[in-house]
Amino acid sequence: MTNWFEEDLGEAVDHIGWLSGEVSAYAINRAVHATRNRPHPFSTLSDYTSWDSLTDRTYLARHLPPVPPPVRAALDQTAVQALFKRPPGGQRMSDKSTCLFPAFAQYLTDGFIRTDASNLGKTTSNHEIDMCPLYGRTQAQTKILRETDLSKGLGRLKSQIIDGEEYAPFLFVDDGTRVDPQFVGLDAPLGLPVAPARAKTLFAFGGDRANSTPFSAMMNTLWLREHNRVAGELARQNAGWDDERVFQTARNIVIPQFIKIVVEQYINHITPLPFKLVCDPTVAWTADWNRPNWMTAEFSLLYRWHSLMPDAIQWPGGAIDLWKFGLDNGPLLAVGLDAAFSAAASQPTAELGAFNTADALLPIESQAVMQARFNRLPGYNAYRVAFNLDPAGTMEDISSSPQVVAVLRELYGDDPDNVEFYPGLFAEDRVKNAPLPELILTMVAVDAFSQALTNPLLSAHVFNAATFTQWGLDLIGSTHALEDVVARNVPARGSQALAMTQAGWKWS
Amino acid sequence: MTNWFEEDLGEAVDHIGWLSGEVSAYAINRAVHATRNRPHPFSTLSDYTSWDSLTDRTYLARHLPPVPPPVRAALDQTAVQALFKRPPGGQRMSDKSTCLFPAFAQYLTDGFIRTDASNLGKTTSNHEIDMCPLYGRTQAQTKILRETDLSKGLGRLKSQIIDGEEYAPFLFVDDGTRVDPQFVGLDAPLGLPVAPARAKTLFAFGGDRANSTPFSAMMNTLWLREHNRVAGELARQNAGWDDERVFQTARNIVIPQFIKIVVEQYINHITPLPFKLVCDPTVAWTADWNRPNWMTAEFSLLYRWHSLMPDAIQWPGGAIDLWKFGLDNGPLLAVGLDAAFSAAASQPTAELGAFNTADALLPIESQAVMQARFNRLPGYNAYRVAFNLDPAGTMEDISSSPQVVAVLRELYGDDPDNVEFYPGLFAEDRVKNAPLPELILTMVAVDAFSQALTNPLLSAHVFNAATFTQWGLDLIGSTHALEDVVARNVPARGSQALAMTQAGWKWS
Repeated sequence: MTNWFEEDLGEAVDHIGWLSGEVSAYAINRAVHATRNRPHPFSTLSDYTSWDSLTDRTYLARHLPPVPPPVRAALDQTAVQALFKRPPGGQRMSDKSTCLFPAFAQYLTDGFIRTDASNLGKTTSNHEIDMCPLYGRTQAQTKILRETDLSKGLGRLKSQIIDGEEYAPFLFVDDGTRVDPQFVGLDAPLGLPVAPARAKTLFAFGGDRANSTPFSAMMNTLWLREHNRVAGELARQNAGWDDERVFQTARNIVIPQFIKIVVEQYINHITPLPFKLVCDPTVAWTADWNRPNWMTAEFSLLYRWHSLMPDAIQWPGGAIDLWKFGLDNGPLLAVGLDAAFSAAASQPTAELGAFNTADALLPIESQAVMQARFNRLPGYNAYRVAFNLDPAGTMEDISSSPQVVAVLRELYGDDPDNVEFYPGLFAEDRVKNAPLPELILTMVAVDAFSQALTNPLLSAHVFNAATFTQWGLDLIGSTHALEDVVARNVPARGSQALAMTQAGWKWS
Repeated sequence: MTNWFEEDLGEAVDHIGWLSGEVSAYAINRAVHATRNRPHPFSTLSDYTSWDSLTDRTYLARHLPPVPPPVRAALDQTAVQALFKRPPGGQRMSDKSTCLFPAFAQYLTDGFIRTDASNLGKTTSNHEIDMCPLYGRTQAQTKILRETDLSKGLGRLKSQIIDGEEYAPFLFVDDGTRVDPQFVGLDAPLGLPVAPARAKTLFAFGGDRANSTPFSAMMNTLWLREHNRVAGELARQNAGWDDERVFQTARNIVIPQFIKIVVEQYINHITPLPFKLVCDPTVAWTADWNRPNWMTAEFSLLYRWHSLMPDAIQWPGGAIDLWKFGLDNGPLLAVGLDAAFSAAASQPTAELGAFNTADALLPIESQAVMQARFNRLPGYNAYRVAFNLDPAGTMEDISSSPQVVAVLRELYGDDPDNVEFYPGLFAEDRVKNAPLPELILTMVAVDAFSQALTNPLLSAHVFNAATFTQWGLDLIGSTHALEDVVARNVPARGSQALAMTQAGWKWS
């Protein structure tokens, strides 16, 4: 079997020609057709299909039906940490990706992979790329985040200026000891409480993970500025518009900009394809995979790329240990957005895969295994088959590393059918020229394309100047990478390129 | 321009051949392609497209954007009653339809056309054919309706036996003066309060309109019996299943049975096509109109077929005046389900169109006009164009009746562009061999097919024996008409055929 990103795509390229739009559309359709389309017949609501399971999106959909209980209770979930644990002083760095890659991945996925901590089979996701980290998950939260002092301009999100730069307001008052009453109703940042000295640096953001690292806060701050910039321009160009229309239209414009970057910068960084995918909404307009979005239990797990995080983050003024790089926006406030983006883009990130998760994140790997068991996911090989890949016949088919194979044997014996979904995903070799292993790469593409390009703002009768204004449509059209948005919103922008791919990286 | 139901379909028939499945699929696709597909860019939430308008389904979608206010305030909404009012003693009867046709139409549409009376731009619809009149709109309501005494059998809806026949429990206790506490939480029947003597005949139903006439109560009772019958059979065949699984699977089977009848009996009665449409779920599996359902402001109005109702309903024991034929299930309880269905199917219904609405229903026609104005719908001609029909150039293009034209001129002057949406729909001549006029027929087909065949239970990976059991799948396959369901659930079934089309009707 071949995969959507594999060499024989060259034949299609030869056939279709190198017009990037057509080749891109072909590759996207081929990627999504690796498995069946939605609606998924199963969800975490019940082990069989029901009206509730088909309609209640507070549960997660499933790519595969659950296996019968009990699920591998014999193997302690912490035992699998052996597969993930990074040896002391032994972090492997990526040769392709900068830290801008995991920074974007985390910010992106925090918007729609939102497992309910009180029930690992449920979700608080809106199942759309709706930029809820910026705008909130609900209309009530959006209202809380919007500027009410219209003398500052129409259609804006609340913000403050610090050292000449625009940020969201702080979430806490009274020196970090009390949530500002105007922001009660927002989802509280995950991981609270923290010491007041850190709490007082947290921003009033729409997303409960948008303060989780200075990288996430940097991303959300960028989009906050872009929203307010776009709002200002819309208000200037459309004299009759009220606050509501300016706000809504700015949001209309910001979301597709973000999706453009998801496909044209982020997905292109991920794929080993010898050409660039383009974010062409028309690909989805007649696609048989254009069906209502629904996050899956599997998607919620395969995106846990903890091993991408290095032991320490290089920052102007000195490296910051990873375990300190959370729920503290002090480092961001100290250097500003340009320096933060430059820091992310100028250091390599760690390599995704076995034996490369920092100690600080190892417990989360065990939790992921527990979550897979809670949702009774079938094993790794079942997913390879479901996504049109050959199942592993031996442990050596999973990884070329004798060390990885040895740990897999220790955990699961000789039969690859015994390997659990989550460990199997990360035990695989990475695909040549890509930062991800094969099964993750395949599954990410299915859910990414089939849920990003089906966004209602990209749909056939909505993606037009009536929705965005012609100016907005042109702005969306000219946005391809984070750097484009940073350039519009960061004063005294330095000369550092802001790429997810390392400057010296070459195709092999 | 030609329409999906017009003669030149004969050419397609010649080309494809008379295999009913292929011709049916062709006709259905052609019907839906009369206008653009979903997502609709506009909803009643705002006059422009926004994230909220694209996602908040408590508002109604729009086929066309609203016209600017003010909307025809000069014309009193009650003035249009002149177009609808049935002359005393002058009801026109349909030559095609029996009363089973409006009985089914009302029961069907009450499930998803659910305008919020407190805000005519909002809806309480789930936007699906989910049989909420039977099962309730919410999971909480479904729970209220389900049998908790499992000694009666698994997976059942609550019911009672009266004169050997199964009905839902009564909603009221204490001789019709107090809602049974177990049913608090159901939507109250619209039109309450009524006198205790009538109240005590009302059933505890999922839908607030399911008690509105004995015809609606008859329909819901039929499906209650079918649900409980299917549950009993599933429990017998699947020894390990619990109450929950039996209930959910019975519901899985009942909903597609209902949709089968919608297409194969009800829509076939409506169309003037020279062949039968078949309810083939695969038609939607690759269709570019398979997009998330969303009821429209227009659909909510065009289905108000009040003129179908005769001045009196023939009933065993004597005719019942229409104004007494509501919120009183006494007539149904007096005769039982067989006699009630037979009564509906053995009398002609009235003809849809101008000058044929009973006095009892005239105020609702005015309300419909008011609702169209509240939602600022464009005029009649704009919808003809949007649905690929020629606009009326003169009032005579709308109707061949000089009386209708005279009233249109009185109301709107000489220009057909001034004719409002709702009056225009009903002023048109009926299509030959069909019970509906051209624009209604066209618009009904778009929303009917594109919202019924996209039901998740009919989707590609759900419509199978795993969802329904093989027995259930076969049952769905063998269900084509109400009579099939009545035969399974009505003791002492008489010989009266139960058709929506009159026995003596002939194609002209």
